[in-house]
Amino acid sequence: MSDPTLPPPSDSLRRLAARIGARAGEDPETSYTARLLARGMEKCAQKLGEEAVEVVIAALGPERTQLVAESADLLYHLAVVWQLAGVTPDDIADELARREARSGLEEKAARKS
Amino acid sequence: MSDPTLPPPSDSLRRLAARIGARAGEDPETSYTARLLARGMEKCAQKLGEEAVEVVIAALGPERTQLVAESADLLYHLAVVWQLAGVTPDDIADELARREARSGLEEKAARKS
Amino acid sequence: MSDPTLPPPSDSLRRLAARIGARAGEDPETSYTARLLARGMEKCAQKLGEEAVEVVIAALGPERTQLVAESADLLYHLAVVWQLAGVTPDDIADELARREARSGLEEKAARKS
Amino acid sequence: MSDPTLPPPSDSLRRLAARIGARAGEDPETSYTARLLARGMEKCAQKLGEEAVEVVIAALGPERTQLVAESADLLYHLAVVWQLAGVTPDDIADELARREARSGLEEKAARKS
Repeated sequence: MSDPTLPPPSDSLRRLAARIGARAGEDPETSYTARLLARGMEKCAQKLGEEAVEVVIAALGPERTQLVAESADLLYHLAVVWQLAGVTPDDIADELARREARSGLEEKAARKS
Repeated sequence: MSDPTLPPPSDSLRRLAARIGARAGEDPETSYTARLLARGMEKCAQKLGEEAVEVVIAALGPERTQLVAESADLLYHLAVVWQLAGVTPDDIADELARREARSGLEEKAARKS
Repeated sequence: MSDPTLPPPSDSLRRLAARIGARAGEDPETSYTARLLARGMEKCAQKLGEEAVEVVIAALGPERTQLVAESADLLYHLAVVWQLAGVTPDDIADELARREARSGLEEKAARKS
Repeated sequence: MSDPTLPPPSDSLRRLAARIGARAGEDPETSYTARLLARGMEKCAQKLGEEAVEVVIAALGPERTQLVAESADLLYHLAVVWQLAGVTPDDIADELARREARSGLEEKAARKS
């Protein structure tokens, strides 16, 4: 938990990815994450889809804490899928930065016209 | 884009949330995000669910870049839902930290037995 | 199974709806359907969403039997949601007939132009 | 619409499947269904998943007519996926009959114990 090699807790995606990567090689008997990864992409993608359904339902409900809990589940299962596909949080950050640049330009254009 | 008040691009969730928060008050004519937020939670939750379907399909396909692109879409729409619900990336980080602490204890217990 | 009050097995949606309606009043101890209905709409809608994810994944996989099995699950959970909402297969048939009529007219128009 | 070769409108799944099968060979310019089928399984499965999200949201909302409309959309897109996979409503009816038989036996067992 206080492992100094991990990104700080505030950096949620990197920290999730680092923890899941560390579990990848562990014993499926003691690690839920190792067990999940061993089931392969089809099962992990299914879990991701199921968690998304729960986020949608929580978003429509009155409980903010429910949305927080389901969102955390979704991010965990998203990071599991990334691990299996060899995708890193840096890949995602780069993609988001590309979109930011693009949308900034489009907005400027929309303001001028 | 180089706005010094935003979190760094590597901190994807905070940066997404900060940018979406900044757009919340803008003109729906020039900002896609403002337009989306104005449509309300039901529509935004629907978009989130649809993007999750696309991530599931991309995860099962051969294109890593497709999974990166759809994951970025999913995080954006998740952050839009958070904005509408008053949930922050810190709420999520706290929830993930709580789970980390718990799962660390469970793992220790599993190793002992 | 050979209950003469039920629609014939070939009429899948009516038969599903009739059987689920019959279970609605049964003991949740002996009937899975009664137990599911008793959990309420939020849970039943969640199950429906989860089954849809499994149909999507089966549709992309190589096993036709897997798609048949997941589709049957999806129809069952859809009929459970209908039961809770007071929607009948006739409501759906009427809606589909309305669309048929409309799409027939649109097609005629498209052919003429 | 009054095509005597089609199953009656009350037999929703067979009628949907028959109509979609008839459209499969039509001109994508004039038939939405032909156009959709031509886009292939990945796109059709995605549409199915998206419609399921809309059914989930409608199920949680107050509008019964919304649930009817979204359910009709879902069945249509399910039948499109069946068409592409070579699955028929009879395959589904057979699978549901198998489950009925099984669940009847399980229920008898649960009542005795």
